[in-house]
Amino acid sequence: MKPERLARRVIYESPWVNLYVDKVRFPNGMILEDHHLLDFPQAAAAAIVEDEVGSLLFVRVCRYTAGTDRWEVPAGGLEAGESEIEAARREILEETGYMSEGHESIYTFYPMGGLANKVFHVVRCRAGRKVRDFDTNEVSETCWFTREEIKQMIKDKAFSDGLTLTALLLWLQG
Amino acid sequence: MKPERLARRVIYESPWVNLYVDKVRFPNGMILEDHHLLDFPQAAAAAIVEDEVGSLLFVRVCRYTAGTDRWEVPAGGLEAGESEIEAARREILEETGYMSEGHESIYTFYPMGGLANKVFHVVRCRAGRKVRDFDTNEVSETCWFTREEIKQMIKDKAFSDGLTLTALLLWLQG
Repeated sequence: MKPERLARRVIYESPWVNLYVDKVRFPNGMILEDHHLLDFPQAAAAAIVEDEVGSLLFVRVCRYTAGTDRWEVPAGGLEAGESEIEAARREILEETGYMSEGHESIYTFYPMGGLANKVFHVVRCRAGRKVRDFDTNEVSETCWFTREEIKQMIKDKAFSDGLTLTALLLWLQG
Repeated sequence: MKPERLARRVIYESPWVNLYVDKVRFPNGMILEDHHLLDFPQAAAAAIVEDEVGSLLFVRVCRYTAGTDRWEVPAGGLEAGESEIEAARREILEETGYMSEGHESIYTFYPMGGLANKVFHVVRCRAGRKVRDFDTNEVSETCWFTREEIKQMIKDKAFSDGLTLTALLLWLQG
């Protein structure tokens, strides 16, 4: 038994996000007259990129939403028809200049399940050769951190991007 | 140097979420004409509630957004004027019937930093007495899981709610 949509008011539609206000009946009989739904046509993928000694590849990203400029793992939206692994490979190349191989999709989750159906994938892989420069529009620096540095940075709350934090914690746990 | 808003188009405003399309200049000079911003007036808090033997308290929640019915940790939005600790204490009581004590805010992050300024807090605490029934509109069951059960459930990808997953991974790491 899943929640059932009884009516929909379209607030906004775009290739990035749609905003609907739905009337919803839940399996327990409860009816919500105005359930906001942020509908995202495309999922996103984050990449855990390991080198031969187990360090991970990071990119420095400036976020308008949060007013932050922090280290994140390479990540981005899936383009039409792409799998999360294809998207991860492309984003790694664009954001760092590195090829990558041995990709494995390790987890899929809803980052904001209360209001949004956005899907995040975490992909783990090995770094290949560096074949080009990174896209300076999206990224200001790239860097490798060791496992111990990453554990300390989490203790210091250095990561504010949720997808990065969750991907790193999954990697440490695995 | 932070990104600067040059113009704003208001698509939708409500107590839950505002949708803006902003023209933004980034510190590197790049200008985005149409940067979608999902602006959330209130943060949310998740609660890691431990009993005396180190098991955690879970609630079963049906999500319209994802079409899922899964175990999550107690969580919810901050009400006006509430700290994350006050919100966690209130949500634990509403969603499980348990009092709680010894609250500590252990991490704060942006779950969807690319497009949204929503803030998530993770609060850790100890369970107190059970003083009432839980709110059956929001929760269908409550349950305690041990540390080993939680580690196995993460391996089995049993958690699809990002806030729950991140909170549990932080707890396992800490």
